[in-house]
Amino acid sequence: MTYCVAIAVKAGIIFCSDSRTNAGVDQISTYSKMSHFGKDGERQFVVLSAGNLATTQAVINQLKNDIKQNAGSHLLNIPSLNEAAEYLGRISVTQQEKYGSGPIHEASFIIGGQIAGASHQIMMIYPQGNFITSSVDTPYLQIGESKYGKPILDRIIEPNIELNTAALCALVSMDSTMRSNLTVGPPIEVTVYEGGTQLSNRHYRLEQESSYLYDLNHAWDERLKAAFSSLPPIQWADIAHHEPENKEL
Amino acid sequence: MTYCVAIAVKAGIIFCSDSRTNAGVDQISTYSKMSHFGKDGERQFVVLSAGNLATTQAVINQLKNDIKQNAGSHLLNIPSLNEAAEYLGRISVTQQEKYGSGPIHEASFIIGGQIAGASHQIMMIYPQGNFITSSVDTPYLQIGESKYGKPILDRIIEPNIELNTAALCALVSMDSTMRSNLTVGPPIEVTVYEGGTQLSNRHYRLEQESSYLYDLNHAWDERLKAAFSSLPPIQWADIAHHEPENKEL
Repeated sequence: MTYCVAIAVKAGIIFCSDSRTNAGVDQISTYSKMSHFGKDGERQFVVLSAGNLATTQAVINQLKNDIKQNAGSHLLNIPSLNEAAEYLGRISVTQQEKYGSGPIHEASFIIGGQIAGASHQIMMIYPQGNFITSSVDTPYLQIGESKYGKPILDRIIEPNIELNTAALCALVSMDSTMRSNLTVGPPIEVTVYEGGTQLSNRHYRLEQESSYLYDLNHAWDERLKAAFSSLPPIQWADIAHHEPENKEL
Repeated sequence: MTYCVAIAVKAGIIFCSDSRTNAGVDQISTYSKMSHFGKDGERQFVVLSAGNLATTQAVINQLKNDIKQNAGSHLLNIPSLNEAAEYLGRISVTQQEKYGSGPIHEASFIIGGQIAGASHQIMMIYPQGNFITSSVDTPYLQIGESKYGKPILDRIIEPNIELNTAALCALVSMDSTMRSNLTVGPPIEVTVYEGGTQLSNRHYRLEQESSYLYDLNHAWDERLKAAFSSLPPIQWADIAHHEPENKEL
């Protein structure tokens, strides 16, 4: 399984991905799911991928080959992020269909970044090749095992938070996902993109034995438990007692 | 969609279910997913149901009819909770197959309770009719939309907590689920079963406009945000900077 999240706030974008892949729980490997494309000062893209590993690798390879061969459209000459998402979607559909059809070959992607002169943005590309962007109300996109880590994003992320807060929230979201799904796991990769810079210079990688991941895991666990303990106890008297209709004596 | 959870601790069992059903988001209705069967002082069972509404209603009806007609095995004469789960599984499979096959007719159930002389226990019945129970390490079972509400259960529930704490945790788990999935919604039903009593006398129902649900929702939101704010800020210097291999310039 996989969990990737991209958070677009006014200050920039946080990209965060795990690195575990599995074909059954007895065949687990480590692969990066984050790729970078760009020219410093002119444009930067980060691509996150989830789904069939053969498909996602084939797609990333084609993105690279198109640049090397300078063949028509590629990520270093495409005029907008919107067209980049469309281009990525076309490649993804082609690669999925190459070895047969069906959900087993499916893959989804997030592409985000900035071309000088345009705003920074993130897009999520469905297996069908179509795509959506984030919004002021939902300033993040997820692919893979997204449910466990969604509640904290919904509560914390809004467009005015700082990049450091968004990064911390992405890591907490990743921590909740790893706790509940063993097939999502370290190393965790984080890229911090500072809006308006078109620079790709802040990449971080947290290994399995990272003391920061360990400390964050414990700190969050402790604080969540304390938050729960501080809730007012149930006052049953305040809740309507109810004689259920589905009662068969 | 549906979310139901049963928590079995030493002191007894908490059952909690939402009441929203939907066939598409434009066809939403309210149905109880919690049914009670028992004889005070002798045995008590609670059945929670998720999945195809026609299937779950047919199953609950048959459970009732078997009692009315006193036909062979039924919930008021079956000798153990294990056999009750097996019986419920057989009925479920029969009803699922009656109108065609495939996942659209699927249903899953939780049955829990106690027969005098045996311990109280909970069982989850898969659409295939087989079933599992809870354990000391995982003292709860969920059916339906289970992922959003799982992280808080994993952190709080252990066999020695009080019934009131387990009930509060079930409601927080329900709150997180309702926040993330609009097709899970009130009224929320809660049954508190006090172990060793074989009594069915603590049923509660929280309506959409329940001030307790509203207060709990706000209190939990506020405390989660405070918990997040109190995390130590990211010290990027403590995290290894990393030059990614998937970097195409």
